[in-house]
Amino acid sequence: MDYKKHYFDWAATSPADEDILNEAVKISLENWGNPSGSNTVGKKAKTILEEARSTAAKALGVKPDTIYFTSGGTESNQIPLLAVMSKPLKGTVLISSIEHPAVKAQAEAMKHCGWNVVEIPSNTDGIIEPEAVTSLLTNDTMIVAVMAVNNETGSIQPIYEIADAITKACEGKRRPKFHVDCVQAVGKISIDLNYKGIDSAALSSHKICGPRGIGILYMKDSIEPFLRGGGQEKGIRSGTENVLGAVAFSKCLLRYFNKDNSAQKAKTDEFIEQLSKLPGCTIVPPSRIEKKDLFSPFIVQAAFAHIPGNVMLRSLDAIGFYISTGSACSSKKNSRPVLEAMHVPSEIRETAVRFSFGQHTTPQAIDELYDAILSVTKQFNR
Amino acid sequence: MDYKKHYFDWAATSPADEDILNEAVKISLENWGNPSGSNTVGKKAKTILEEARSTAAKALGVKPDTIYFTSGGTESNQIPLLAVMSKPLKGTVLISSIEHPAVKAQAEAMKHCGWNVVEIPSNTDGIIEPEAVTSLLTNDTMIVAVMAVNNETGSIQPIYEIADAITKACEGKRRPKFHVDCVQAVGKISIDLNYKGIDSAALSSHKICGPRGIGILYMKDSIEPFLRGGGQEKGIRSGTENVLGAVAFSKCLLRYFNKDNSAQKAKTDEFIEQLSKLPGCTIVPPSRIEKKDLFSPFIVQAAFAHIPGNVMLRSLDAIGFYISTGSACSSKKNSRPVLEAMHVPSEIRETAVRFSFGQHTTPQAIDELYDAILSVTKQFNR
Repeated sequence: MDYKKHYFDWAATSPADEDILNEAVKISLENWGNPSGSNTVGKKAKTILEEARSTAAKALGVKPDTIYFTSGGTESNQIPLLAVMSKPLKGTVLISSIEHPAVKAQAEAMKHCGWNVVEIPSNTDGIIEPEAVTSLLTNDTMIVAVMAVNNETGSIQPIYEIADAITKACEGKRRPKFHVDCVQAVGKISIDLNYKGIDSAALSSHKICGPRGIGILYMKDSIEPFLRGGGQEKGIRSGTENVLGAVAFSKCLLRYFNKDNSAQKAKTDEFIEQLSKLPGCTIVPPSRIEKKDLFSPFIVQAAFAHIPGNVMLRSLDAIGFYISTGSACSSKKNSRPVLEAMHVPSEIRETAVRFSFGQHTTPQAIDELYDAILSVTKQFNR
Repeated sequence: MDYKKHYFDWAATSPADEDILNEAVKISLENWGNPSGSNTVGKKAKTILEEARSTAAKALGVKPDTIYFTSGGTESNQIPLLAVMSKPLKGTVLISSIEHPAVKAQAEAMKHCGWNVVEIPSNTDGIIEPEAVTSLLTNDTMIVAVMAVNNETGSIQPIYEIADAITKACEGKRRPKFHVDCVQAVGKISIDLNYKGIDSAALSSHKICGPRGIGILYMKDSIEPFLRGGGQEKGIRSGTENVLGAVAFSKCLLRYFNKDNSAQKAKTDEFIEQLSKLPGCTIVPPSRIEKKDLFSPFIVQAAFAHIPGNVMLRSLDAIGFYISTGSACSSKKNSRPVLEAMHVPSEIRETAVRFSFGQHTTPQAIDELYDAILSVTKQFNR
């Protein structure tokens, strides 16, 4: 059975690029030493690791020494967030109200250590406005975290404008670090990591056809980490370096980072137009129909009246179409915190589902998805 | 060139079991969904992940619900250590003075958050005695961490006696958690994770021929984690589950955990005897010659008079023998904290090197290593 053709849960994970994975396996079997070891076997592996770092840097258009390999998106978010805990004084962590749990739940835990955590409200479009950020800045704000693309609605955050606004608001004062979770942006929308005022960014391999267990933390300037160990990755991420993962991820970045997404955009815009005309269907947020450019063309959130999200998921699943309700990372909790933060009414939250696309989603598959949705909604509205 | 035959740095990392890796790649390509997803693609991956958990549990002789997949040994040590920071009151973290940096450096960072960190002294054999642990227990001790096998000297710690001593000392009182870093023990010496009084243990895949980026945290009872995110692995380790890694690691455990090590022991004992008779060679600690059973047969630390450790490493490297000085995790710092904690004199610390063996080291290769050492020492003593 071809599970890939009608797979619409790319925001959760992607099928692997088999040729890249197989090549990385081969390279890692030939260069299996510990890159931090001093012998020839270790040095061979170190060479490959540094080549992977250079490849990733080239793909991202940044300097190799700003690339730190981590175990994934979650850890790439945790490291800069937790690093503030190495500071002598406690302060405030300012995060958007629509962050992924890797930021939101981690910040929450920091309250136990005396840190103040403040959430930046989202507007009803699911967008964090620069003024919403700056109005909450205080002298003790140590880090601000706003994601680039929301994982549930696909809303694109104005990260460059936010970076500018923070810089301007802090003129003559200490500027807090600005961290951007780019997990849902990489390979989907264009991203400029060099942009002034962006200090760090989290990237995950398995969202763009790479293996699990590998991510990148991009960081302009080094920090004193709170998570510590053997001191690998210049002390920023301890643990024996994952050469296989680094090789595969860097090749995926070369293949997919900042790739033209106009074909996907045209198709998604059409899909949204179609859905919006379907009786009982609400695009989430409804304003998306008029503001399509504010959203990633790879994620569509929509609600279907009287059909609970999990029922829609199971109905589509039964006919071979694979979607999701919330993010996989909160699927068990049966709550929709991102939609709540956007003040989406409960009847919409409960009937909302996520369609997410990726590098190998075809226009035909999206047409077939629309037909499948149509047949399910007809069944329920008979 | 066959780098594997004369590779004596298994404590840093191991060459991969190619058949296990290739099989895990195949399985992960077929079951590539997000195990936390609710659709069929996700559920297929979840089934494989849970099979891997059962396999690992079977190999380790523990219940599947005590197995948490992590990104590696470092994280498996960080999670239980940092979990105490979710408690309402600060207290003391009691760690052995010979712990790996994954425990030692991480505990150090916790001081920034008001935690008291106390080190348990080692005796000159490199052993942490149970009385040394209990004499430092206080009412506010929240966790005790003592590794099973030291990564530099191979000293086997009396973890069962320490567990008993803690239980006895805390009779009628709250007992602190007892965490055991088993990274250098797994696949090398026999370990009973079910032993009463052991609450958690860290295991790493790449030390026993599995891939990087995957580890296991064994935990008898759940905890409130401090590291947080999407809530995977019952909230204990967030981040999309690494199915490839879990499958490969569980198969490696089945192949190598608690495997009979008597042949290696016989050969290592012979190697130590040979070395001890070599003029200028000091076994570290020297007491090992009389107390061979107190050490893992897979790690030998030895010093060669007037030959700095890195010179011995480079000299052996030049003739195709791959060893290390300290652990790869501290190779850059040019210090030997474990040997310092054991009060090893500086001239021995500076000339000490580590020979470490593994599943595929042959007796013949160790004979050839001895001959190589002999030829290097002769060169320097001419």
